[in-house]
Amino acid sequence: MHNEIIKDIGEKELIRRVAEYMPTNQASDDCALIKTKREDLLINTDLMVENTHFNYKIISPRDLGWKAITTNYSDLVSSGCIEFIGVNIGLVLTPNTEWKWVKELYEGFSEALNKFGGSILGGDCSRGENKMISITAIGLQSKLKLRRNACKPGEILLTTGIHGLSKLGLLIKANQIKKEDLNLGKKLIDQSINAFCRPTPKHQTLKKILLSSEFFMKKEIGCTDSSDGFYQAIFDLSKESKCKAVIDYQKIPKNNNWPDGETWDQHYFFGGEDYELLISLPRDWASKLIQMDKDITEIGYFTQGSPNVEIKNYPNKNNLYNNSYSHF
Amino acid sequence: MHNEIIKDIGEKELIRRVAEYMPTNQASDDCALIKTKREDLLINTDLMVENTHFNYKIISPRDLGWKAITTNYSDLVSSGCIEFIGVNIGLVLTPNTEWKWVKELYEGFSEALNKFGGSILGGDCSRGENKMISITAIGLQSKLKLRRNACKPGEILLTTGIHGLSKLGLLIKANQIKKEDLNLGKKLIDQSINAFCRPTPKHQTLKKILLSSEFFMKKEIGCTDSSDGFYQAIFDLSKESKCKAVIDYQKIPKNNNWPDGETWDQHYFFGGEDYELLISLPRDWASKLIQMDKDITEIGYFTQGSPNVEIKNYPNKNNLYNNSYSHF
Repeated sequence: MHNEIIKDIGEKELIRRVAEYMPTNQASDDCALIKTKREDLLINTDLMVENTHFNYKIISPRDLGWKAITTNYSDLVSSGCIEFIGVNIGLVLTPNTEWKWVKELYEGFSEALNKFGGSILGGDCSRGENKMISITAIGLQSKLKLRRNACKPGEILLTTGIHGLSKLGLLIKANQIKKEDLNLGKKLIDQSINAFCRPTPKHQTLKKILLSSEFFMKKEIGCTDSSDGFYQAIFDLSKESKCKAVIDYQKIPKNNNWPDGETWDQHYFFGGEDYELLISLPRDWASKLIQMDKDITEIGYFTQGSPNVEIKNYPNKNNLYNNSYSHF
Repeated sequence: MHNEIIKDIGEKELIRRVAEYMPTNQASDDCALIKTKREDLLINTDLMVENTHFNYKIISPRDLGWKAITTNYSDLVSSGCIEFIGVNIGLVLTPNTEWKWVKELYEGFSEALNKFGGSILGGDCSRGENKMISITAIGLQSKLKLRRNACKPGEILLTTGIHGLSKLGLLIKANQIKKEDLNLGKKLIDQSINAFCRPTPKHQTLKKILLSSEFFMKKEIGCTDSSDGFYQAIFDLSKESKCKAVIDYQKIPKNNNWPDGETWDQHYFFGGEDYELLISLPRDWASKLIQMDKDITEIGYFTQGSPNVEIKNYPNKNNLYNNSYSHF
């Protein structure tokens, strides 16, 4: 088409088109694999652009630094990273950025690296008209690979935790929900702001998966994180694994104080910026893993069929409307 | 200081400050080293920001794609990269960017990768108010490390080629030099535009250094590329190696059609975006390398003394004025 512009193509189609310039084995997961003679490495790049992903009103530089590292590490974890090596940081700043802002950003980076491992390897700084943080994270691939395309019909679908909190945190920070307008408990508000500003990669889950793997011979299992939202994560697993996901609405774990209603289901299913893992495992392995970690919950299964997500026992009249976020 | 802003701190001081958050062994070279059990990898991130590093008037998307890969690879080469593995690409686009622009950018990436090796491993795309390309390149570290801080007093300083062409190319593309105003030959103009738009990493030089190394036992040698300019490269070697560089103006190789005069010396010494290597070697090794590659030229030596660059036999009345480029 002549003079086609990115806004009209949309983010997903753009990513599909540029993926055509990559070797075919790399395109279905967020992380890429680097093979070396004795070890394989995982590499992942994430961009955070001012006024697209963040602005000074809704997140402090310290929280932003923490979040830039942990969300990147979450992608590595979702591919089966057993050890974080470090990050390269590309930083675009406006000339009138205060040094205090940069210092607190780096303190946030350091805080996350001290907690989860790895160090700042290198990077680049440049002037620009808007702030931008580009982080490339590197980690060691465990022998068990976690991949979007490795779910099998008959397997159980697990989640490491609840969803929707980060979206609620964003709405609160952006003043799009008035605290006094809603009967949200202080605890739910605090948890939501924390989920939005201080997400935690599920780096302990892989160790439990490996511990519980003793009797199960598999080189890879189906997994992704829910950074693009709960529904999108399951849809991506289904699409890349070429089978159908069936989830039971009644089994989905929710925060005790999470309100009922369609708006809240929208936040839960499509809010995004959750960093839980969605994992597909054979029944016996899944049962063993659930015994080891009480936060891990069975929410459905995979079955033969066209890639799709079926939601059983959904109580509301209207179907869920997929309003997942697009950057373009 | 209170409310200090980046513009007042300057680029060098900013880089020095953020380097304090890195492990101390990583900070003096552009590339970082990743140790794995059997092989070491080199990793390097470079940012290219619209209106800071490029704009649509001076470089086509295809040339920009080529240049983004090759300049990044030049950093890997200058640390002793023996094989390119690939790149992660972070791309920020405005919503009204034409797909044609993106397509040609990726064709430029692919052209460079096909020529020099490696592939697109992964990346990220996002919307922003200006275009930005963040490339993280990965390669294999050869057994001989090339490092800024490894020059020794008594060693010879070599250059793989001539400087200044890229700056002239930029001035021509930016219409800051009128072709008709100057008696520049067509060949010099073409070479300069090519140097600016289509730089080539000196990836063959390492092989020659290794071939000529037979009788010389060294684990690392002094080297950097001249991406920040000829003078800055030598100054960086001198500073990081804590010794003095002495260069002979009369030995510096110039393009046959390069005009004389102080302006042209400025372009030569401080123009930047040259991607030649500056190499420090013991005399015998240097002689052997020069025999193998007629483009490699001896231009000076290192000696004990405070980090500095002394220019001998400089013919012009005024000293060279360091007007090297700062992004802030």
